[in-house]
Amino acid sequence: MRLLTFSTGTQASSRVGVVRNEERVVDIASAAALLHVELPFDPTDMVSLISAGAPAQTVLEDIVRRAPDDLPLDAATLHAPIPRPRKNVFCVGWNYLEHFAEGEKIRPHIKDMPAFPTFFTKAPTAVTGPFHTVPYFVDLSAQLDWEVELAVVIGTGGRDIAKERAMEHVFGYTALNDVTWRDIQRRHGQQWFKGKSLDGTCPMGPWIVTRDALDPAGLDLSCRVNGVVKQTSNTRCMYFDIPTIIAELSRGLTLEPGDIIATGTPPGVGHARTPPEFMKPGDVLETEVGGIGSMRNPIGGI
Amino acid sequence: MRLLTFSTGTQASSRVGVVRNEERVVDIASAAALLHVELPFDPTDMVSLISAGAPAQTVLEDIVRRAPDDLPLDAATLHAPIPRPRKNVFCVGWNYLEHFAEGEKIRPHIKDMPAFPTFFTKAPTAVTGPFHTVPYFVDLSAQLDWEVELAVVIGTGGRDIAKERAMEHVFGYTALNDVTWRDIQRRHGQQWFKGKSLDGTCPMGPWIVTRDALDPAGLDLSCRVNGVVKQTSNTRCMYFDIPTIIAELSRGLTLEPGDIIATGTPPGVGHARTPPEFMKPGDVLETEVGGIGSMRNPIGGI
Repeated sequence: MRLLTFSTGTQASSRVGVVRNEERVVDIASAAALLHVELPFDPTDMVSLISAGAPAQTVLEDIVRRAPDDLPLDAATLHAPIPRPRKNVFCVGWNYLEHFAEGEKIRPHIKDMPAFPTFFTKAPTAVTGPFHTVPYFVDLSAQLDWEVELAVVIGTGGRDIAKERAMEHVFGYTALNDVTWRDIQRRHGQQWFKGKSLDGTCPMGPWIVTRDALDPAGLDLSCRVNGVVKQTSNTRCMYFDIPTIIAELSRGLTLEPGDIIATGTPPGVGHARTPPEFMKPGDVLETEVGGIGSMRNPIGGI
Repeated sequence: MRLLTFSTGTQASSRVGVVRNEERVVDIASAAALLHVELPFDPTDMVSLISAGAPAQTVLEDIVRRAPDDLPLDAATLHAPIPRPRKNVFCVGWNYLEHFAEGEKIRPHIKDMPAFPTFFTKAPTAVTGPFHTVPYFVDLSAQLDWEVELAVVIGTGGRDIAKERAMEHVFGYTALNDVTWRDIQRRHGQQWFKGKSLDGTCPMGPWIVTRDALDPAGLDLSCRVNGVVKQTSNTRCMYFDIPTIIAELSRGLTLEPGDIIATGTPPGVGHARTPPEFMKPGDVLETEVGGIGSMRNPIGGI
């Protein structure tokens, strides 16, 4: 299933939908009302749906099969599938070998491959929709950079999750761009949080593909700016795989339903190019993950 | 006012209370019911109260004045005043000069005083009460360290908050211990998040003192382990003051009501001692901020 959060011109409040026949959206709240189905979750809240577990997915499949009505996908305004995460987005840094290598020229003192994943976070206020404008803070920085990533959405929470059982804790997958204000990332005591958390720097979507519908092991990733390919890779090039990331992150730290983990970006980011390249107002950022879909975020003024 | 979140043996669900006459607690929900006052916020949720702004505080003051009933403070189980923040806790690193200096021996390549604050975060799942046990993960690490801090709670949100107006955005203050698993802090690509976010590593409380009742500029801080003073300093030794922290953090990043900002720790942490000292199961961690109060967290097994 492809699950999205959307609104329409006639109904501005956002709610959960399911893609049907590629180009249509079933509005779960109204379909459930028409079918007299009592929902075991709040249909305006994706995290509520995720928290409701497997029984909710069975109900959902039944509704999508029987819904008498749907709307065209292009009549829906898509929001991030989880527009407001309950905590910061977990992120993994330096998880593609070549991206680690391209960063080396600015980190000459770090030579060895890492023994543990690098974890940092993005504020929930950074999350934005798959087609929304990313604000450009002209007074703050001129180094707006891109980072295409596969994101994992946690279904069943837990602490000290064994690597062997980790995939059972996954609800699904989405695309994410870890948009980064590069100089800000570096100037706060080498802690990346601030430069990764400015408003609008976490486009996510266009939807969540549930775990049963996607093998995350060999997905193509690409990032384009104004139509020019800047990053292209495949999730098989990840250094720490998804089970390892979940196992390491959850050691002593409880994961919860709806938690989002961005799994790292491949080479081709702007700051590591010769000469360095950054985005400016009017540019268009496209983020694509095979088997999931594409986002298209214009860069806007502020 | 001193605002707390508490539960009792007879009523396990947590709710907001206000300290009256030093040793009594007014249960806001039940007092409002008795007085037939309609509350402009959810009395089980401190962030709802904070979000309701100045009118809510006026109602609260009226209720506390007129409440016919209260309970002894020691009959209440105190939780963190915001038991479940809506996002990660913002933290400032290296904000006391001597603490920066004591870290230098392990960071010989960083010599200059920082131009920008160091920001990192702690997961909301790390938050625990002022008298709760901090879990000890014996299989994970033996380096459990302490960091007493003054925490600021944001009242009015905003982006690009001017330093001159920053204090108007403060709701109040609380004490916080940025408990740190020191080796884990360092082994994840030098990003501190993971080692700062294990479950139970963010004791907070015992209550929020509202801005009108406290000048944060000259507060004594101290941290004791098993009754022995390990850290002692004063908030006047902060390198970046509260207005600067709020202004820098909010540049391009929207702050929201109920956001928590830990303002950094003074010298005396365990890893910088000779020889290094860490906590172990059975130890008792005490965290005190003048004008606010004290926390007492036992270190437990797991």
